Amino acid sequence: MSAPIRYYYDLMSQPSRALFIIFRLSNMPFEDCVVALRNGEHLAEDFKKEINRFQRVPCIHDNGYKLAESVAILRYLSAKGKIPEHLYPKYFVDQSRVDEFLEWQHTSLRVTCAMYFRTVWLEPLLTGRTPSEAKIESFRMHMERNLDVVEEVWLEGKDFLTGSALTVADIFAACEIEQTRMADYDVRIKYPKIRAWLKRVRQSCNPYYDVAHEFVYKISGTGPQAKL
Amino acid sequence: MSAPIRYYYDLMSQPSRALFIIFRLSNMPFEDCVVALRNGEHLAEDFKKEINRFQRVPCIHDNGYKLAESVAILRYLSAKGKIPEHLYPKYFVDQSRVDEFLEWQHTSLRVTCAMYFRTVWLEPLLTGRTPSEAKIESFRMHMERNLDVVEEVWLEGKDFLTGSALTVADIFAACEIEQTRMADYDVRIKYPKIRAWLKRVRQSCNPYYDVAHEFVYKISGTGPQAKL
Repeated sequence: MSAPIRYYYDLMSQPSRALFIIFRLSNMPFEDCVVALRNGEHLAEDFKKEINRFQRVPCIHDNGYKLAESVAILRYLSAKGKIPEHLYPKYFVDQSRVDEFLEWQHTSLRVTCAMYFRTVWLEPLLTGRTPSEAKIESFRMHMERNLDVVEEVWLEGKDFLTGSALTVADIFAACEIEQTRMADYDVRIKYPKIRAWLKRVRQSCNPYYDVAHEFVYKISGTGPQAKL
Repeated sequence: MSAPIRYYYDLMSQPSRALFIIFRLSNMPFEDCVVALRNGEHLAEDFKKEINRFQRVPCIHDNGYKLAESVAILRYLSAKGKIPEHLYPKYFVDQSRVDEFLEWQHTSLRVTCAMYFRTVWLEPLLTGRTPSEAKIESFRMHMERNLDVVEEVWLEGKDFLTGSALTVADIFAACEIEQTRMADYDVRIKYPKIRAWLKRVRQSCNPYYDVAHEFVYKISGTGPQAKL
């Protein structure tokens, strides 16, 4: 039997949480390698040299093979038979529908939710400066443009983003959207479909969903049940 | 024999150019469905309903199956045997290295090059307003942070981004970087490795590289050979 993969992650990172939940749901053993982003561990020269040349998480080492980028990692492990087919389809047509979401999210949902979180929560924490209302409003508008697409296009007539059952697409999306809780944004107010879908995703992924979001709940001061 | 796929694209769009070059290099027949973004054709209600619910290009229709997102399209067509293995590897370990780049680029190289192009070229054209020097400088800094990674990490000790031969990763990256020519940015000045690599990519992809970039060359007022 080969050694389990080494998984480098921080549960404060959205894609780190997504892979953590996916690995647990897949019963895939991994060696727990927590990287404390808050301490800048990823910025150390050693980390760049030994762990990940891009100085980010998540990443994996599989018996010496180093791979970064959450979606690339997911596909690699799926090809190795580590991810069950119901989470990431093997049939190429079904897989392409999940891929369509995974590719769509980067420059739309991911960038805009992350920028909102950064502007409203992270930067004030790091710099001590409060962003202007106009700046917050502009970032909220960009984010909501993409949340509109999730509500009106992706969730149109379906229980999950790519069909009637949970896939990795839902897990990546939910982890991204949950991040905005910490910036005190409540996605559930304007978006009833997203509200109901988040509840389904959490139920389908628990107990791992709540484990992965423990810090998010704590920082946002909302329990896992809050507003669901 | 089944009908060729319908390819909806505009050569002003970076990923549209990338797929166009990949399809030509793969000798894959397709039905040419040009969408004029400059006329807002993608914003029409009909386009949303009939062509692509996300109102973007590129996208394909394959015998009724509609798929968006360039990387998802590439993977779907590769699974159908339409893309040669040297451009997108079938062996999962080699494929993961190409995937790592395709996933990395979205929120790094793609977003920042596109934002620079948008700020310096597109927005002044649409609004008649010139951006401030400080704004241009800020967008240039973000872009160059990612060009640094291409120069120092991706191209370190290699002729192409993921090894010694051209893959789709190089084509996607080159199309993104070429876009900045139109905003009068010359990537070749600060980045000798990118300069030499772009030359190799163009040579490996011609005559299709120049066909795809005809408008880019025209708008930027530089010939294909310029500065290479």
